[in-house]
Amino acid sequence: MFPGASTDRGHADFVVVGAPLDVSTTFQPGTRFGPDEIRKFARTFDDYDHRTGQYFSDCSVHDHGDVYAWDDAEEYVEYLEGVVTDVVWDDAVPLLLGGEHTVTGAAVRATDPDVFVCLDAHLDLREEYDGNPLSHATVTRHVLDVADEAIILGARTGSEEEWERAAKSDVTVVPPEDVADWQPDFDGTAYLSVDIDGADPAFAPGTGTMEPFGLSPREMRDVVRDVAETTDVVGFDVVEVNDRDDGQAASLAGKLLREFVFSHAGTTD
Amino acid sequence: MFPGASTDRGHADFVVVGAPLDVSTTFQPGTRFGPDEIRKFARTFDDYDHRTGQYFSDCSVHDHGDVYAWDDAEEYVEYLEGVVTDVVWDDAVPLLLGGEHTVTGAAVRATDPDVFVCLDAHLDLREEYDGNPLSHATVTRHVLDVADEAIILGARTGSEEEWERAAKSDVTVVPPEDVADWQPDFDGTAYLSVDIDGADPAFAPGTGTMEPFGLSPREMRDVVRDVAETTDVVGFDVVEVNDRDDGQAASLAGKLLREFVFSHAGTTD
Amino acid sequence: MFPGASTDRGHADFVVVGAPLDVSTTFQPGTRFGPDEIRKFARTFDDYDHRTGQYFSDCSVHDHGDVYAWDDAEEYVEYLEGVVTDVVWDDAVPLLLGGEHTVTGAAVRATDPDVFVCLDAHLDLREEYDGNPLSHATVTRHVLDVADEAIILGARTGSEEEWERAAKSDVTVVPPEDVADWQPDFDGTAYLSVDIDGADPAFAPGTGTMEPFGLSPREMRDVVRDVAETTDVVGFDVVEVNDRDDGQAASLAGKLLREFVFSHAGTTD
Amino acid sequence: MFPGASTDRGHADFVVVGAPLDVSTTFQPGTRFGPDEIRKFARTFDDYDHRTGQYFSDCSVHDHGDVYAWDDAEEYVEYLEGVVTDVVWDDAVPLLLGGEHTVTGAAVRATDPDVFVCLDAHLDLREEYDGNPLSHATVTRHVLDVADEAIILGARTGSEEEWERAAKSDVTVVPPEDVADWQPDFDGTAYLSVDIDGADPAFAPGTGTMEPFGLSPREMRDVVRDVAETTDVVGFDVVEVNDRDDGQAASLAGKLLREFVFSHAGTTD
Amino acid sequence: MFPGASTDRGHADFVVVGAPLDVSTTFQPGTRFGPDEIRKFARTFDDYDHRTGQYFSDCSVHDHGDVYAWDDAEEYVEYLEGVVTDVVWDDAVPLLLGGEHTVTGAAVRATDPDVFVCLDAHLDLREEYDGNPLSHATVTRHVLDVADEAIILGARTGSEEEWERAAKSDVTVVPPEDVADWQPDFDGTAYLSVDIDGADPAFAPGTGTMEPFGLSPREMRDVVRDVAETTDVVGFDVVEVNDRDDGQAASLAGKLLREFVFSHAGTTD
Amino acid sequence: MFPGASTDRGHADFVVVGAPLDVSTTFQPGTRFGPDEIRKFARTFDDYDHRTGQYFSDCSVHDHGDVYAWDDAEEYVEYLEGVVTDVVWDDAVPLLLGGEHTVTGAAVRATDPDVFVCLDAHLDLREEYDGNPLSHATVTRHVLDVADEAIILGARTGSEEEWERAAKSDVTVVPPEDVADWQPDFDGTAYLSVDIDGADPAFAPGTGTMEPFGLSPREMRDVVRDVAETTDVVGFDVVEVNDRDDGQAASLAGKLLREFVFSHAGTTD
Ligand SMILES: [Mn+2]
Ligand SMILES: [Mn+2]
Ligand SMILES: [Mn+2]
Ligand SMILES: [Mn+2]
Ligand SMILES: [Mn+2]
Ligand SMILES: [Mn+2]
Ligand SMILES: [Mn+2]
Ligand SMILES: [Mn+2]
Ligand SMILES: [Mn+2]
Ligand SMILES: [Mn+2]
Ligand SMILES: [Mn+2]
Ligand SMILES: [Mn+2]
Repeated sequence: MFPGASTDRGHADFVVVGAPLDVSTTFQPGTRFGPDEIRKFARTFDDYDHRTGQYFSDCSVHDHGDVYAWDDAEEYVEYLEGVVTDVVWDDAVPLLLGGEHTVTGAAVRATDPDVFVCLDAHLDLREEYDGNPLSHATVTRHVLDVADEAIILGARTGSEEEWERAAKSDVTVVPPEDVADWQPDFDGTAYLSVDIDGADPAFAPGTGTMEPFGLSPREMRDVVRDVAETTDVVGFDVVEVNDRDDGQAASLAGKLLREFVFSHAGTTD
Repeated sequence: MFPGASTDRGHADFVVVGAPLDVSTTFQPGTRFGPDEIRKFARTFDDYDHRTGQYFSDCSVHDHGDVYAWDDAEEYVEYLEGVVTDVVWDDAVPLLLGGEHTVTGAAVRATDPDVFVCLDAHLDLREEYDGNPLSHATVTRHVLDVADEAIILGARTGSEEEWERAAKSDVTVVPPEDVADWQPDFDGTAYLSVDIDGADPAFAPGTGTMEPFGLSPREMRDVVRDVAETTDVVGFDVVEVNDRDDGQAASLAGKLLREFVFSHAGTTD
Repeated sequence: MFPGASTDRGHADFVVVGAPLDVSTTFQPGTRFGPDEIRKFARTFDDYDHRTGQYFSDCSVHDHGDVYAWDDAEEYVEYLEGVVTDVVWDDAVPLLLGGEHTVTGAAVRATDPDVFVCLDAHLDLREEYDGNPLSHATVTRHVLDVADEAIILGARTGSEEEWERAAKSDVTVVPPEDVADWQPDFDGTAYLSVDIDGADPAFAPGTGTMEPFGLSPREMRDVVRDVAETTDVVGFDVVEVNDRDDGQAASLAGKLLREFVFSHAGTTD
Repeated sequence: MFPGASTDRGHADFVVVGAPLDVSTTFQPGTRFGPDEIRKFARTFDDYDHRTGQYFSDCSVHDHGDVYAWDDAEEYVEYLEGVVTDVVWDDAVPLLLGGEHTVTGAAVRATDPDVFVCLDAHLDLREEYDGNPLSHATVTRHVLDVADEAIILGARTGSEEEWERAAKSDVTVVPPEDVADWQPDFDGTAYLSVDIDGADPAFAPGTGTMEPFGLSPREMRDVVRDVAETTDVVGFDVVEVNDRDDGQAASLAGKLLREFVFSHAGTTD
Repeated sequence: MFPGASTDRGHADFVVVGAPLDVSTTFQPGTRFGPDEIRKFARTFDDYDHRTGQYFSDCSVHDHGDVYAWDDAEEYVEYLEGVVTDVVWDDAVPLLLGGEHTVTGAAVRATDPDVFVCLDAHLDLREEYDGNPLSHATVTRHVLDVADEAIILGARTGSEEEWERAAKSDVTVVPPEDVADWQPDFDGTAYLSVDIDGADPAFAPGTGTMEPFGLSPREMRDVVRDVAETTDVVGFDVVEVNDRDDGQAASLAGKLLREFVFSHAGTTD
Repeated sequence: MFPGASTDRGHADFVVVGAPLDVSTTFQPGTRFGPDEIRKFARTFDDYDHRTGQYFSDCSVHDHGDVYAWDDAEEYVEYLEGVVTDVVWDDAVPLLLGGEHTVTGAAVRATDPDVFVCLDAHLDLREEYDGNPLSHATVTRHVLDVADEAIILGARTGSEEEWERAAKSDVTVVPPEDVADWQPDFDGTAYLSVDIDGADPAFAPGTGTMEPFGLSPREMRDVVRDVAETTDVVGFDVVEVNDRDDGQAASLAGKLLREFVFSHAGTTD
């Protein structure tokens, strides 16, 4: 259980769902252990949040546990969409713990946001990767079949085709250097996805593909707070954490999830 | 390049093929780094082999490099079968470096042996695993579509269905305790596959699924020598090595490959 | 949850209790992560056991989860004794996952065996260690306040005072070299405790104090089987596993627990 | 020996004391190896300091070695207080190497400062933690029995009760974002304590409880320099370093100790 | 092969040369694995570079492979100089992958630059280190036998003699705090050497001697871009990467090499 | 200090000398940390030895500390010979902690034994390695300039030239399979050298060049006991331990040193 996520499912405003898919991880695998690692390193965090004056265990968070993953990403994502749809029907906000970024597609389809806001080193705008249309490197592309626009914060690499796709009007790319000054400015509902590789590798070495020159944890935190406090967020995830570092990536992931909950809970109380 | 595998492809009697597939790895992933690790830890081995009086670099081994793997195991295995078939048509013996055990299927189809001899903790006789008929846990089952019989040495676990399948006349299971006394006693051509998890985890912790109570390295070595020296072996592999230990699994894997080459080369000179 | 330990508490014949105490660990700490590690590395094991023809998930095992540990070992052990006593009153056999060896004291007091059988590199017969009468190094001494005799298998080190205590008639020490030939030969009920450092460090490097020249996994397994099958065992534990290796210690620990359950369940069916 | 700390005890202006207590470490244990790690990673530092034009080996530092720790934190801290008191009576400044933060209590009682300045992610203002009044999480609370005021730099988490305690007039909390602009501005003697978890986890992953959004090494260094150069510091420590990273935490800890010595020595020459 | 460095030697504008010397590494050895690690972690990078609109594989880079190192640093550096000289005679820019910093001497002698620009935590201006005039700690000193001036960016430590040498007119030291504002402003040809320990240890823990308070990756990147775009660079290297972290140092090194190529190729197209 | 080695130099029968040379280590470096690691992992061993009824701290062992190593192996070995000669002149038995095997040469020249007994995976009979006549791979060759004969136990690999040299009458090679049955049977004084890679890699992964199919710890222990108890041993070392495993190699090394002392001390009391 994510520490403090002890609310009954029936009364929960937020539902943590572990989604340990690890099939298309490009380089260093291990995202299957991501949900476990995030929960483990969150054990050390104080229940109380001084900034918002709230207790995490009072924020009505339930931990659904993991949706056990198998090799068929397509089937898995479809099944996961069902699980997340149940959360949505229960009027709760899903909080996915990845797993590879592919799992975000399930949650986006289940939550049907207007805007997709993403912290990521990568554009993830490919049509396919190694012939796989369900690779983690295509997730934002697929999300745009559901959402009207995508805002990718911290992106610093992609193929030429991805950058061309990113140049279209429904995509906004905020380079790492400009993230500190970014403020959410859009209408409609939003989904917020945190690919932990948006951070500089020093802060999250435990991820599949390290991409230097990235974001600082405070920059990521401020984006999470701003989006959670000023927009209508229907879903959240943190993905691409693996077990190959000394806990840095998982610690950061757990903190960002908590920041989201504290900030969002604050808006609805 | 595997150290000493410097013979030109045209003159090679053995061809090393890296097959870093890592899609269905059940628990701890990382077999995609197996071929690299095996080549790296083999750098320390003497070129000369005292027992057989041969130099590895004189044994006519070529390293083809890796067949880059992608997410679609079915397509990959088919493609890999083509690569290995080319080796066979060149009258060379393929030496696969896995990658997950699934890749063995490609080499077996390319080499078409009468008997499949396997060192493995697992029976790998499932029809499917998590709905995947191409999982590493099904490889021996599929191999029996090609080979007439399978001999599984060191197997100590499996599902009830696998054990029932293993009870049929075309499968022989030699439990770990009896491997030291086993001698090859069959006619026809053989393919020899080494799943490194046949070893006790102390000797090969860097593998996907550790299974205690396994074989000692010398027991595995003696099987390799015996099969290579007394039977007509048409192909060899060592699989399921990952990068999650301190080199023990890769060291052992590289040594077993060399033992195979020294022993087999000795029979044909 | 220990994989397969999914029986309801009310119907369980065995109850897994995690006891992650890590206060007096002498050298390399980390036993607080032992229960997690053991459960994690047990995920890869087949549910089915070929030797006994049983499924682990049919063996009526419940996982109580962990009894959260705090710094006061004395209070903790007392509290833990209560938890284990509840298990005993429910007519189930407790299966402790340590945690430092100290936790065994709680289970022994709760189960009140006649004979204490222990696999351990150490005698653990001190009166106190660094002034602490509740150190893991005193556990067998304290156990002898409850049990009539102690049999320590694989012990190879201790203080002079411990060896003198071991020379008394209520203690039998079986050195590592003689464990393979040992057979249980006593009357009354037994408690079986596995300190994972009984194994040679190659097989269980993830423990607080490595002591070379130890037991092989098969020797430990055979002791577990023999005791479970031929004697009246009222409790079992496996302790002193930490998170400082590549999973070898946890894999072995999980297997030994399963061997105990399969063997003991076989006796009662 | 801390590299360069080769002055005789009788002539020393600073005395390094290792205090490897590791009993109440909340999450990831290993602070018992902190003093060793800090000394090891300090081997690579130049003896000469360009900024101050001094040699560390000329700064009159003696290394007392470690005060061997045992399980009873209360007794240990009392004993340690005696050791540090001897240092004070010899007119030397104690430099503690932790060990858990608890050890700071001993040095503060021995040095009796007016102001306690602390770099820490945590408030450490609990009355007790898990029932333990001597937990590392209570150290600043206890220190306020001796010192008149506490200044906690970089603190970003605590319980509600701790934040209430922190709101009293004798405590000043400087959040991480404001540390760069902080300057010491108080009268009387000071004790400076560096809990390495004040740093962002990227810079010191080897600590018990990682807390993201922390300080940069230069911010910590500037605090150390400013306090050492402008106030009357009677004691210094760096604590909560363990052996679970690749040396980052220990490197930083060793540097901060040296910065303290160079800065303080400069004031007295 | 460095990913994308697939141009034939005859047509190459840049030639990668691995130089895994690891003899005088002062503290934590392992630079012998540096070239391998850098190539490995560069596999994840997109071939396309958005800033310059180029593909790395179109930048005419050839990978020569490694110049196998042996124990005699003097002979090795001489031999390596020959290899690099061949690159220069072929009108290509050498890109060395270290190995210890000593190897830079070979490339500087082969390329004969006017100015030596270096990112390094250390001055490397010793005449000898432990009696060894070919230690990595002397490399900038020796380089000044060839180049007219040296600019050392990010240096923060050295012996008193080194700082005295650095005070001469042919050496410019830019402390870490000032690197962000530095711009190249010199005439003639330049050689650019990146000792990865110029970075703060958080960003490159995998190096021989960690030195806190260092550069951020973006600061290093901007130096590489500025030098490559505005000056006549005749050679480049990145050195002192080892295999003792989780890939952070190698990732950064590979990125900086690519930034150099993209920036320099842009100037010549 | 090696735990228990607290006798004054003037009264010592044994003197521990750390010799952290790490220049010619062939593959995985880190032997420079060998002495530290061995001392660290020996902290857990009981002072008392039950077999011989002795306390290690009563065996008159002094720890001289490390002889700091630099890059020039020739000079270092010469200097080390002086240090060991002092030990010999003081009528004490030197106990070297390596460092690479090269350091054995110094101790052999200082102790001038008739017979050199060695546990090693390698023959170490080269005249030079990579042009280096002082490589660790030449140590037994050089030792034969001093000793009349060499007995190499557990050797399983070497170059053809080494095996030819080994066939001469002054060398006896005992293959790993025969070590259990070997008994010392020679006249004159002996020097006993333990290259930790004589063990199978499972038992000592932390060494430069892992060579599978090696000795078990008990086999090594029995050789140490037999030689120490039945022959006139003038010197002992354990070498080639590095810091790249989880402590297995260092634990074993420390135990073997203790077994030597207990066995040898027993003969002289
Ligand atoms: Mn992504
Ligand atoms: Mn990404
Ligand atoms: Mn298999
Ligand atoms: Mn298997
Ligand atoms: Mn015990
Ligand atoms: Mn024990
Ligand atoms: Mn603290
Ligand atoms: Mn803290
Ligand atoms: Mn340098
Ligand atoms: Mn440097
Ligand atoms: Mn040797
Ligand atoms: Mn050797």
